[in-house]
Amino acid sequence: MQYRNFPMVPRVIFGRGSFNQIQEILTPKRVNTKAPFIFLVDEVFQDNPWLIDRIPLRFLDQIIFVSAEEEPKTSQVDALVEELKSRFTQNPSGIIGIGGGTLLDMAKAVAIMLTNEGSAADYQGWDLVSNEAVYHVGIPTISGTGAEVSRTTVLTGPEKKLGINSDFTPFDQVMLDPELTRGLPQNQWFYTGMDCYIHCIESLTGTYLNAFSQSYGEKALELCRNVFLEKNVRDEDSEDKLMMASWHGGMSIAYSQVGVAHAMSYGLSYLLGTKHGIGNCIVFNHLEEFYPQGVSEFKKMVRKHDIEIPTGICKDLTDKEFDKMIDIALMLVPLWENALGKNWQEIITREKLKNMYKKM
Amino acid sequence: MQYRNFPMVPRVIFGRGSFNQIQEILTPKRVNTKAPFIFLVDEVFQDNPWLIDRIPLRFLDQIIFVSAEEEPKTSQVDALVEELKSRFTQNPSGIIGIGGGTLLDMAKAVAIMLTNEGSAADYQGWDLVSNEAVYHVGIPTISGTGAEVSRTTVLTGPEKKLGINSDFTPFDQVMLDPELTRGLPQNQWFYTGMDCYIHCIESLTGTYLNAFSQSYGEKALELCRNVFLEKNVRDEDSEDKLMMASWHGGMSIAYSQVGVAHAMSYGLSYLLGTKHGIGNCIVFNHLEEFYPQGVSEFKKMVRKHDIEIPTGICKDLTDKEFDKMIDIALMLVPLWENALGKNWQEIITREKLKNMYKKM
Repeated sequence: MQYRNFPMVPRVIFGRGSFNQIQEILTPKRVNTKAPFIFLVDEVFQDNPWLIDRIPLRFLDQIIFVSAEEEPKTSQVDALVEELKSRFTQNPSGIIGIGGGTLLDMAKAVAIMLTNEGSAADYQGWDLVSNEAVYHVGIPTISGTGAEVSRTTVLTGPEKKLGINSDFTPFDQVMLDPELTRGLPQNQWFYTGMDCYIHCIESLTGTYLNAFSQSYGEKALELCRNVFLEKNVRDEDSEDKLMMASWHGGMSIAYSQVGVAHAMSYGLSYLLGTKHGIGNCIVFNHLEEFYPQGVSEFKKMVRKHDIEIPTGICKDLTDKEFDKMIDIALMLVPLWENALGKNWQEIITREKLKNMYKKM
Repeated sequence: MQYRNFPMVPRVIFGRGSFNQIQEILTPKRVNTKAPFIFLVDEVFQDNPWLIDRIPLRFLDQIIFVSAEEEPKTSQVDALVEELKSRFTQNPSGIIGIGGGTLLDMAKAVAIMLTNEGSAADYQGWDLVSNEAVYHVGIPTISGTGAEVSRTTVLTGPEKKLGINSDFTPFDQVMLDPELTRGLPQNQWFYTGMDCYIHCIESLTGTYLNAFSQSYGEKALELCRNVFLEKNVRDEDSEDKLMMASWHGGMSIAYSQVGVAHAMSYGLSYLLGTKHGIGNCIVFNHLEEFYPQGVSEFKKMVRKHDIEIPTGICKDLTDKEFDKMIDIALMLVPLWENALGKNWQEIITREKLKNMYKKM
């Protein structure tokens, strides 16, 4: 048996208001005055001085607002890298992603592509990156994706939706300030929290499970249950706990894998542009066969928070579209293998997947 | 409020038999053929080919067996550094500690002192180290101390027992192979496991607690309870779980602090040479006042495993000896403050400590 030597985020700061320490953290990392810090910030914060005014801009530093309305694309990464290369004479001192999974993945991908030739699409897969990335920092403002600790950055490319999985992908620094997640719209809070819940279920029931992933996954699940089932208010305590759930959930899948929901949700995202959080919910809602207890508990949480999970989004698709979606989902071999074992192809046929998608 | 930007172990491999991957992990870290890897190994393994034969020695690489009968001393660290400096023309490519907390702490301290002037005793305290340590790897063979993830290396110096707490202290690489903990004598297994249990209780009931530490501490505690209370056998599952308990427990205190048991146990170690694990048990056994539930549960575990906790070890001490022990314990201000708050000195007087020690 060969084990992965897992790269962990080497620096983490946790605490309400810890975002105020951003300057002291970045200053020692400035290469020189011509190498700026580039802050990639979710554009929902554009008119939010509470957050924006605390971003310390010096010399050539720059905030670039990025929409998270759509899942991050390889073309977007390439365009950003192109822009930074043309605008500055040197590579940035650092790329700082501030936002949800989309912004965090974008920051990781841009940091990688600044030091690696070609298009981000060339690196979608496992261990294709050869040069160390530019220093990059992740500051989540939405909890649940686990992108803050993961070894991947999931991108939609011209041919596939797949992560850049590499030892150079994880952030050099993460700032966990639960205060930054306040005021998030209820639906988004729920969908993204469920990303964590769902990947924990996938990790904990998967064939790749080991005691490392299990201990992280169980803790994350417990925190999700507390936030979404036991508690009746969304307060500071929930913000703290959900941020830790996301962290532990990310660690759990980092050392194992996700499963059926993620594989199928990637298909939806690729074809229909469905955002990852809601996409997972749409899929998971129909996965009783694979995750009976998890799906039943998930439905309880949906009811408790009065959340609408869209249905019928696949009903008007053509056969060709179904085929594309199925192609994307089937590409994710480690996910299927984790969920169903080495012989997963005996269980998951194209026909079976099509029938499942049709219900969604 | 100022938060610590915590340095995490940047690489971790987990799995039964993962120790077999030691060569692939070390090879890329070799500086050159004159800069050896130095393996500091607990001397209990001296005649254990199952472990020793798997240590890959190339060029000038060396195994140095170290006794863990006593707590690690600054003088021992200084002597080892002296020896390495005189024997080789270059600093080692890496220091690899294989053993329990003593060996892990020794490896961390030697790695630091190879690049920092003077004696290890000069660096006992908080953030006194200025140069990056030599690459160092921790491979625990006993679970519970949390030394594999901590930001400290606890040493007994001429004047104090105190850690070298610094950002350069944590290992660059940790290998978690639960198989290496098999065959550990029952007492040592219990005492060291209780180190984890006790520091989780101290962390979870402390004033420094936050959601980060809490989530790690709760998981570690749950794993300890499972191993020491719920399960009736010591099997592979216990080995896996206790190794993860130690890891999570270490993470919990890394971001908060330990408390009364650790502070007082340091006093015992300094004066009487009591090993840390058993010292914690001796002290904790008498701390109902501070940790009523934890102590009651601890006593259940002691009974279940039919462990003898020594008593009366302080009964023949002189006043001068008590004074020294109390001096050492009181030096650990953050531990007392965590346990009892800013006004801890109103609760903990020298007289009070003396009376507590007298019972032990």
